[in-house]
Amino acid sequence: MREVAVIGVGMTKFGEIWDKSFRDLVAEAGMKAIMDAGIEGKDIDAMYIGGMSSGGFVEQEHVAPLAIEVAGLEEFHIPATRVEGACASGGIAVRHGYMAVASGMHDIVIVGGAEKMTDVAGTEATNVLASAADREWEAFFGMTFPGLYALMARYHMHKYGTTPEQLASVAVKNHYNGSMNPNAQYKRRITVDDVLASPMVADPLHLLDCSPITDGAAAIVLAPVDIAKEYTDKIVRFRASAQASDTISLFNRSRFDALPVTIHAGERAFKQAGLTPKDIDLVEVHDCFTIAEIMAIEDLGFFKKGEGGKATEEGLTALDGELPVNTSGGLKSKGHPVGATGVAQVIEITLQLRGEAGERQVKDARIGMTHNVGGSGGTAVVNILEAI
Amino acid sequence: MREVAVIGVGMTKFGEIWDKSFRDLVAEAGMKAIMDAGIEGKDIDAMYIGGMSSGGFVEQEHVAPLAIEVAGLEEFHIPATRVEGACASGGIAVRHGYMAVASGMHDIVIVGGAEKMTDVAGTEATNVLASAADREWEAFFGMTFPGLYALMARYHMHKYGTTPEQLASVAVKNHYNGSMNPNAQYKRRITVDDVLASPMVADPLHLLDCSPITDGAAAIVLAPVDIAKEYTDKIVRFRASAQASDTISLFNRSRFDALPVTIHAGERAFKQAGLTPKDIDLVEVHDCFTIAEIMAIEDLGFFKKGEGGKATEEGLTALDGELPVNTSGGLKSKGHPVGATGVAQVIEITLQLRGEAGERQVKDARIGMTHNVGGSGGTAVVNILEAI
Repeated sequence: MREVAVIGVGMTKFGEIWDKSFRDLVAEAGMKAIMDAGIEGKDIDAMYIGGMSSGGFVEQEHVAPLAIEVAGLEEFHIPATRVEGACASGGIAVRHGYMAVASGMHDIVIVGGAEKMTDVAGTEATNVLASAADREWEAFFGMTFPGLYALMARYHMHKYGTTPEQLASVAVKNHYNGSMNPNAQYKRRITVDDVLASPMVADPLHLLDCSPITDGAAAIVLAPVDIAKEYTDKIVRFRASAQASDTISLFNRSRFDALPVTIHAGERAFKQAGLTPKDIDLVEVHDCFTIAEIMAIEDLGFFKKGEGGKATEEGLTALDGELPVNTSGGLKSKGHPVGATGVAQVIEITLQLRGEAGERQVKDARIGMTHNVGGSGGTAVVNILEAI
Repeated sequence: MREVAVIGVGMTKFGEIWDKSFRDLVAEAGMKAIMDAGIEGKDIDAMYIGGMSSGGFVEQEHVAPLAIEVAGLEEFHIPATRVEGACASGGIAVRHGYMAVASGMHDIVIVGGAEKMTDVAGTEATNVLASAADREWEAFFGMTFPGLYALMARYHMHKYGTTPEQLASVAVKNHYNGSMNPNAQYKRRITVDDVLASPMVADPLHLLDCSPITDGAAAIVLAPVDIAKEYTDKIVRFRASAQASDTISLFNRSRFDALPVTIHAGERAFKQAGLTPKDIDLVEVHDCFTIAEIMAIEDLGFFKKGEGGKATEEGLTALDGELPVNTSGGLKSKGHPVGATGVAQVIEITLQLRGEAGERQVKDARIGMTHNVGGSGGTAVVNILEAI
């Protein structure tokens, strides 16, 4: 397998982007990544795009050739593929771009992710998102994603004594980080009291424990390290890219205090990289809800099971802590256009490893990780990236 | 790259399957393929599933972990990925299973495709299918898929003198072939007069020029040829697997008398295999409409541009012709559960190359091809398979 580098990154602002359509967002992110890489359209050998439900949100499937067309790449007739794994669609796209380059099948591959979620009403968005759960046995009975993660939060609180304040501390930290990210949906700093005073969505999750509905797109350009050297001095390479699956339903899951899918994807990534959690300088985890970040930092091996809430409350995962988590603001503050999220995570780590993260730059960042989850834990992708 | 073999195949009956749900179809096809291969669940290293719009048809995205769960494979936490490229979703799944094995990333990979299209009304099915076209610039203005292919048919007739009778002869041949396929949706043999007397859907395409709305699932098991030998004596290996893209929209297409995406995917496949059209013993092409088969057999190089209709009318593509086309009955007669189609095409070629195609067996079939198209030609996948 060849070593694979990220040679270009680009993303739209995340938020309620009323003046741009799905195709506008895709084109903007793609063009920014291509310009950042310094390549031309004819250099691209393949394209992957992650999207959860462009069908549900904008009545458009078959978005890979749509992306090809808006980018003006049709004359090259390159393989262009949409992958879908709910909120992990972007991560899956990254992994497949990585596989295409690592295997030698393609040289320069562009990987995008996009979702335009605010063209439908909020209730309909909730319904579309529920298609990431088991429709027949969960969603049809009224279960929504805040409900699924609330069940996990309650169990975690019951088993380990995790508190509402600890959950809130995740949101407080991520809003603080996001306040320094020009592309973030929310730049307002909040307090634990703000979170606890916000409306209850699904007990114990308040509104400010939940990531928002977001429009946005993100793209990266991948190349073999040998070729990457022709384009950039700041090479960020993959040390690992791993994907795992589990039941789509929560009720059939083997345990409820963790996401087994994260544990497996994480273990595979560390094994592939020959690294341990201690080697990771910063990580972007899938904080669709505050409890999700707490479980993620435990399941990835950074903290003992049950101690993620305490670690967050104590500031260990803050920007100046021992393991900065979600320096971008995470899904919570940066926003969560589901198909774009896994790609945007790689962008944040790449910017950090290049030393281009501005106010939120982590000092001496050399190895970073991304962690992207689909649904209530049916899919996960974990990447490890390194500056060389 | 390693050589890749098909070691197991399985499919449901195609048709209006009222007594089975999406998950039932997925489970049935997967189990049949696993049993045909003689493997166990623990042997599987990765899974791909092609589906165009389970979101639109059954309100279910994230179908890869759903498939993992219904198959009881969750304990292995294998990478499980849905790919989507409209009606080429199954072909894309096959190609990604092929890539995963060929590259050495995974050994045994199961590839599925499924669509449950009859749980919505026919008008809504037409609307969901229109999401494979450019929603903003085609479908919102009333364009449907029969309309898009009717435009191409009219142009082909104008430019090359292709006749309604030649179009009809595609349907007649495919219904004849399908009458010998136990899994086909329609087993009724029809005549040219039947086609011309059937209601006009989009001039010049009559009802019997159109493939139907279908429920169904199909699955295959892939393995490196070295490992395949442990499971079967009848080895069918890939000589090529190629994918191409073009504009999603028809109006931006560089030509209208052909699908450039087919030409490019076909040329790449022949180049990869080191073969020419003369080497192919039989081919399954994407006959979503009769004109589509005529263009496909021209675009793949089997007949000169403009002569596909005449060739069909003269019987050159019949079961006993010089190049049997769509021995399975094709999308027209076997049915077209869009996400399953590309996988089912590989099943037909595999059965033919194994000599297990029953009444519709092509004598001395050694090398076969599949051709799967998404939308009006935004995506195409071409595979070449060989019995060894």
